Amino acid sequence: MKLEISDLFATMQPELLRVESRVRDAAKIDFPFVSSLILDLVQAGGKRLRPLVLLLAARAYRFEVETLVTAAAGVELLHTASLVHDDTVDRSALRRGKPTLNSVLNSGAVILIGDYLFAQSAMLAAATKSPRVVAVFASTLADICDGQLREIFDAHRLDQSRAEYDRRIYGKTAALFAGAAEMGAIIGEAPESHIETVRRYGTDVGLAFQIVDDVLDLREGTDGLGKPGGQDLRQGTVTLPIMLYAEKLPDGSEESRLLRAVLSGEQSEPAAIDQVIRAVRASGTLDETLAQAARLTDRAKDRLSIIPDPETKAMLDQVADIVWERTT
Amino acid sequence: MKLEISDLFATMQPELLRVESRVRDAAKIDFPFVSSLILDLVQAGGKRLRPLVLLLAARAYRFEVETLVTAAAGVELLHTASLVHDDTVDRSALRRGKPTLNSVLNSGAVILIGDYLFAQSAMLAAATKSPRVVAVFASTLADICDGQLREIFDAHRLDQSRAEYDRRIYGKTAALFAGAAEMGAIIGEAPESHIETVRRYGTDVGLAFQIVDDVLDLREGTDGLGKPGGQDLRQGTVTLPIMLYAEKLPDGSEESRLLRAVLSGEQSEPAAIDQVIRAVRASGTLDETLAQAARLTDRAKDRLSIIPDPETKAMLDQVADIVWERTT
Repeated sequence: MKLEISDLFATMQPELLRVESRVRDAAKIDFPFVSSLILDLVQAGGKRLRPLVLLLAARAYRFEVETLVTAAAGVELLHTASLVHDDTVDRSALRRGKPTLNSVLNSGAVILIGDYLFAQSAMLAAATKSPRVVAVFASTLADICDGQLREIFDAHRLDQSRAEYDRRIYGKTAALFAGAAEMGAIIGEAPESHIETVRRYGTDVGLAFQIVDDVLDLREGTDGLGKPGGQDLRQGTVTLPIMLYAEKLPDGSEESRLLRAVLSGEQSEPAAIDQVIRAVRASGTLDETLAQAARLTDRAKDRLSIIPDPETKAMLDQVADIVWERTT
Repeated sequence: MKLEISDLFATMQPELLRVESRVRDAAKIDFPFVSSLILDLVQAGGKRLRPLVLLLAARAYRFEVETLVTAAAGVELLHTASLVHDDTVDRSALRRGKPTLNSVLNSGAVILIGDYLFAQSAMLAAATKSPRVVAVFASTLADICDGQLREIFDAHRLDQSRAEYDRRIYGKTAALFAGAAEMGAIIGEAPESHIETVRRYGTDVGLAFQIVDDVLDLREGTDGLGKPGGQDLRQGTVTLPIMLYAEKLPDGSEESRLLRAVLSGEQSEPAAIDQVIRAVRASGTLDETLAQAARLTDRAKDRLSIIPDPETKAMLDQVADIVWERTT
């Protein structure tokens, strides 16, 4: 069974609209000015991929809409909260093509607004009344923090392993896809082995998503990303395409010295950063990296053989492909 | 039945030591440098009043130690996490007489460490496996954020009501005492009406605690507080003693103008701030404020008449008095 992405969103629209409305309600806060900022933020929020994964993970089993919508809204708000804090950490001015809260409010207020959104997401998780869903929710939050802390403490050094990169992007991005899938399957009362497999599907989709993101940061400019390109390099974040590029460079070469100077922050001239970006693009590592992400997408899809309902299976298949929409 | 504070801590020591060890375990993180900073922070943590309230709220009913210790550790970590973010918001350099994380790490790392501690506290709440405890936990976090946001958005203006002050300090401080008491009574399977009354006891103790804190900020110097005095004034936070003092000042008087200039931040000279502090001290409003806190303490103790076990009742009575230890 093969589906178009538009079919996927059309089929799931009723549930996604309910998630949307729960997210909007939870984002309401007593201060009108802040409330409108938060509303802008949650409404700017892309495709709702994480809620979609959660809903679909239950769809082939027991589809208990009210609880699923509650949990899905919790997952989306957790995502939004972590973006708010991440933008504060990075001092980013743009996100999804719009000004971040940081560019409008002082950092103290932004920290607390992020905390407020965490609290709202935790209330939604609690409202599922499932201790197991809450446990997955809380450990997902811990994994996200772990990934974001690693991004800070692993920055600026090229001597790191692929395992360190994988662990970092697992926390930063894949944990929430994995958690969304697991929560959906738990609420759907899927058999234990299916819960585990659906969770792994989420992990693979999330890893592919982040790897593609790391490529786009080097391939696209502000217009394509809704935020400035080359941000990872400027922050000293060592991503997979950079690791693969570094492996190709002869020790002590001019290119190697320049890359290290840019990553360490010693060299921060825009022209130097552009020079590294052009060299990475010319080296072919962006395509090699995308090939690795494609293998993860394939693995995610292979895992779906257990899904009993063909339509749901086709939709989860489609979600794994959405990651690639941004690359074309 | 009357108890000494030392008896209280001696009696509850076995459970408090278990809470301590759960808090320390949860504060462990994979980065040795950060781990030792977090450990310092949680170990510097005062008297563990919130865990104590939680444990005692169950003690007259069913005392299921393992779950109570888990929830109490969650409450203490939630408190620590909110202090970490609060210090970042205020850019405080000292807390409990020690340097804050902000004075050692960049603000991005501090935000994420706070988030990490939130995640750990949420994991402990989830580990109680009680949807109701988790719901109280999450709504407590929401109340704390609400109080802290109000502190920012209500700052710098004298035209605010006592109700606004009460709501702010409820969120900032009393919500966690109330939540701790409620969680304890829920785990203890107290009758519904007792759960509600014990929660109100927690609210009153917490309100008294914050009001005393607001007085100490004006009465003590750095030596007595473990942090610089007069911080509320410098941040433009309008506290009860300041509200009472402002009411006494004739409109348009020199003192009134100076107070407004300091609160608005227009006047930030240390000498001017000291002048306001001396005037507040001389005005008698510190004692009037303490009298209001004393009434809350009395009300908290009155609520304890429902507690079936005299020893537990005496201990909760004692906890309500601990608030006052700092004033002598």
